Amino acid sequence: MLRTHTCGELRTAHIGQPVTLCGWVQKTRDKGSLLWVDLRDRYGITQLFVEEADNKSLAAEVRNLGREFVIAATGTVIERQSKNPKIPTGDIEIRIEKLQILNPAKLPPFLIEDETDGGDDLRMKYRYLDLRRNVVRQNLELRHRMAKAVRDYMDSQGFLEVETPVLIKSTPEGARDFVVPSRIHAGEFYALPQSPQTFKQLLMVSGFDRYFQIVKCFRDEDLRADRQPEFTQIDCEMSFVQQEDILNMFEGLVRHLFKAVKNVELPTLTRMTYDYAMENYGSDKPDIRFEMKFKYLTDLAKGKGFQVFDASETVVGIVAEGCAEYTRKQVDELTEFVKKPQIGAKGLVYVQCKADGTFKSSVDKFFDNEALKGWASSMGAKAGDLLLILSGETHKTRKQLNELRLEMGNRLGLRKKDEYAAHWVIDFALLEFDEESNRFHAMHHPFTSPKPDDLHKLNSTDHEVLGSIRANAYDMVINGVEVGGGSIRIHDRAVQSQMFKLLGFSEEEAKAQFGFLLDAFEYGAPPHGGLAFGFDRLCSLFGGSDSIRDFIAFPKNNAGKDVMIDSPSPISEGQLKELHIKL
Amino acid sequence: MLRTHTCGELRTAHIGQPVTLCGWVQKTRDKGSLLWVDLRDRYGITQLFVEEADNKSLAAEVRNLGREFVIAATGTVIERQSKNPKIPTGDIEIRIEKLQILNPAKLPPFLIEDETDGGDDLRMKYRYLDLRRNVVRQNLELRHRMAKAVRDYMDSQGFLEVETPVLIKSTPEGARDFVVPSRIHAGEFYALPQSPQTFKQLLMVSGFDRYFQIVKCFRDEDLRADRQPEFTQIDCEMSFVQQEDILNMFEGLVRHLFKAVKNVELPTLTRMTYDYAMENYGSDKPDIRFEMKFKYLTDLAKGKGFQVFDASETVVGIVAEGCAEYTRKQVDELTEFVKKPQIGAKGLVYVQCKADGTFKSSVDKFFDNEALKGWASSMGAKAGDLLLILSGETHKTRKQLNELRLEMGNRLGLRKKDEYAAHWVIDFALLEFDEESNRFHAMHHPFTSPKPDDLHKLNSTDHEVLGSIRANAYDMVINGVEVGGGSIRIHDRAVQSQMFKLLGFSEEEAKAQFGFLLDAFEYGAPPHGGLAFGFDRLCSLFGGSDSIRDFIAFPKNNAGKDVMIDSPSPISEGQLKELHIKL
Repeated sequence: MLRTHTCGELRTAHIGQPVTLCGWVQKTRDKGSLLWVDLRDRYGITQLFVEEADNKSLAAEVRNLGREFVIAATGTVIERQSKNPKIPTGDIEIRIEKLQILNPAKLPPFLIEDETDGGDDLRMKYRYLDLRRNVVRQNLELRHRMAKAVRDYMDSQGFLEVETPVLIKSTPEGARDFVVPSRIHAGEFYALPQSPQTFKQLLMVSGFDRYFQIVKCFRDEDLRADRQPEFTQIDCEMSFVQQEDILNMFEGLVRHLFKAVKNVELPTLTRMTYDYAMENYGSDKPDIRFEMKFKYLTDLAKGKGFQVFDASETVVGIVAEGCAEYTRKQVDELTEFVKKPQIGAKGLVYVQCKADGTFKSSVDKFFDNEALKGWASSMGAKAGDLLLILSGETHKTRKQLNELRLEMGNRLGLRKKDEYAAHWVIDFALLEFDEESNRFHAMHHPFTSPKPDDLHKLNSTDHEVLGSIRANAYDMVINGVEVGGGSIRIHDRAVQSQMFKLLGFSEEEAKAQFGFLLDAFEYGAPPHGGLAFGFDRLCSLFGGSDSIRDFIAFPKNNAGKDVMIDSPSPISEGQLKELHIKL
Repeated sequence: MLRTHTCGELRTAHIGQPVTLCGWVQKTRDKGSLLWVDLRDRYGITQLFVEEADNKSLAAEVRNLGREFVIAATGTVIERQSKNPKIPTGDIEIRIEKLQILNPAKLPPFLIEDETDGGDDLRMKYRYLDLRRNVVRQNLELRHRMAKAVRDYMDSQGFLEVETPVLIKSTPEGARDFVVPSRIHAGEFYALPQSPQTFKQLLMVSGFDRYFQIVKCFRDEDLRADRQPEFTQIDCEMSFVQQEDILNMFEGLVRHLFKAVKNVELPTLTRMTYDYAMENYGSDKPDIRFEMKFKYLTDLAKGKGFQVFDASETVVGIVAEGCAEYTRKQVDELTEFVKKPQIGAKGLVYVQCKADGTFKSSVDKFFDNEALKGWASSMGAKAGDLLLILSGETHKTRKQLNELRLEMGNRLGLRKKDEYAAHWVIDFALLEFDEESNRFHAMHHPFTSPKPDDLHKLNSTDHEVLGSIRANAYDMVINGVEVGGGSIRIHDRAVQSQMFKLLGFSEEEAKAQFGFLLDAFEYGAPPHGGLAFGFDRLCSLFGGSDSIRDFIAFPKNNAGKDVMIDSPSPISEGQLKELHIKL
């Protein structure tokens, strides 16, 4: 090694030792006769020290060092005069005797500091410099520890990590595939996997019993903020299980992760049905760090002459505790919030529950004090609270109120980054009718099994009946983020064929796309199920960030470009020709 | 869980316990009044037992079970009358009370046994059934344990596993890239990585200090036996190191792997230079489980009137100990062996060192007993040995003799699968001149650093001088298999530019392809180096197999096809259109 120690490990116990450190010049300080260098590596910062009187030429060398120069410094560990309790090496410094510039550096285009002056685009272009910043590197260190802890747990539970292929076959169901033209087989293409779903099911047919994989997946979707064309899943599958077994196993995994990585004892995961979640939170991934459940006023508020409510299917609100004294401006902000196009409410009704037992509302013209008192009582509000009420078509209104609830959670500081509330949402619908394509889509995916009690409904042609089929599907939600989801799978060929039929596959199409899976089901498929976690998302949750990009070493931008390496990019005519394709 | 225990865990201590097992019917035996079922899962086989007199209908159910039916069996653990010491559960059996068919099974197209009757093609098409066979599944269990042990070691040494992108940029150097057309950026393509080389170097520039990754890589090559278009590497890189540090670190890794996975204490790795390996073994990956080094006879045997030798640059042989009594047929076989087109020797000269001190050779006409005695003595042969001699152009002859040496090693049982000899080959040449393209190629890759002593030669235009530049490059060889290799990298922009120039890149091309790396070198790149192991190959070596396919869950065939899922395959016109490409 070119060094004897890292920049993070020297302590007072090392005083008197000769050492050589290597690293990057974080900064230099020149007080004339005394000079210091902060030398940085992955492990920390150590202060180097030269006295000009001791060694004039060395002092001159130090003066010539620029930010981010890579150097090797040899000297002796000494006690520091003015200690720095903020860093672990703050009690010592190195009186240097020799300095070697291993590589000079141009001035970086932005500051390599926790708080940088570099904009997003610049930092993406020079991602290798952005990764030098402690905050970014620490995210990837966290990711490493997370992956290690996942593997340790899965291994301890008897799961085998099996690599499934990346060059697979394009399937029309789901999102768009990335494809790869074959040179050897003209006119044919591989596809990159959106998930290893069929392979993990085949591994269950193979008797692997417990499979997992931390694996790259690919989706050629129109990118939204914080979507990546390539992303990483913790993909898992088990045989001879029921839903309960999977929930317990993977509750164990996240509890292990919280303990191993953050030393947090995560409370037992609660469970709620999809219907309950939608009714009480207007979301299939409610943030239950705070209560503020929905309260329905439809019966109390409809038919009293207020046109807006009278025309609504549902009138529903939340209680913002202690917010009765919100100013006009604050209430207007909330009204503007729910009227934003991406939320889409027409307006917001509020009721202030005054300390003196009276009520003030935006609908005083239509509802007297007694009526408002009835609302407050029905919603469980007390003096000092603020009622926020939306109305309209049930599903849309719930979704809007979900947004308002989360906004109020933010405003009231109820969504603390270092508090964790995890739970399962279960009993999802199996099928969703899509008006546009005029057919049912799988809510989870086409391999999800109906609840045994609902199995008979699969043969119905009644949309209502089909829509009411519940699935053995489940999502894990932490702090309002869906971190994972899965299902018990179909393991019966007839049921799977029926499912494909419902999803609009002809028999030929099903056979062409998934024939190998249907075949496999005839050769002894065990009951099985599993789930997948979004690993990027899980890391960002653990890291207390909303952006998955911060937890990916070399992410793509929102246009799917890697601006550092300039990809995608044109390829040569020769390559196109070899691949039998034309532009 | 649908079971209380697996099929591998019940012992005499469980006798009397009620249990439910799930698994596949390996076979049934029907002795009229007594019936048995061998129930199999990943963990083992347990015998189920029914007495017809006890339960007639249950016996009938057992009679209806077919091979590979998936069942759940409930009953009581009892002591077995005739114990089977060959299996861990052989002391007990289950007296069953209830049987549930979880899924029936069609008769598999081949036997699910260690020795199967299924041909390669059939087993590839039904890979999910092939994976049920113990021997195949055990290979993947080994692979899981290998990956786990790699990660445990790397983590313990402070390496961070960082995922590098799969959608990157096509580069002309090296093998052909697989490419992925971009839908969002018409006419542009991503490429799949042949290795994460540039990204791991950028991580060193970022100060990550120690990086590793078990990662899929891709090469669109014409497939030879046992080449896969997608393969897995253990990819590693370290900063502030010299070659010695890397050799030690990764010697530590393989020794850890042998200990953790096979409980084998691997001896310290020896080292030899590339030149030494070529001179003594005719190979840059010699199998040193056995000696049989090359012995040169050029001086002794040339100019004695034997035309073949006289026209040869080199006359070189090996000593096959104790083979003097090889029959005519055996010697002919060896001659045929070296004359095979893929080896390409014109003939083989042999000398039998008889027990009585005389010699018999295929060149008796040209060399008398005294001369042959001289050869034997020079080659260190003793009475009873056989000399096998080739001649011709030095490089070619060495390669041919290497093949013969390995063949003799096989014939003499000197290449035992459960014996391991690992070593480093070092001091490779930096550049190789390629006659066809009339330019130098990087022997390792374009980022490999010359030895400091040879750095000045980079500016030469003399092919001889350029060819003599040695690289800081190294391969790890185990049992004649190159399992990994790497180098100290260039970290200086000027040297890297010079290297690209030597490899025929114009300045513009170098900038277009690797501009980001050249830029990165100007912002403070540390000295760094690393290596990569071929993980598939390493697993097959540990598993005692010559085929990497046996250690890949879903491999492709020699035409790059996955015959199970039928990939590659055509995609729709709509997809082509969206991707802006035509066939």
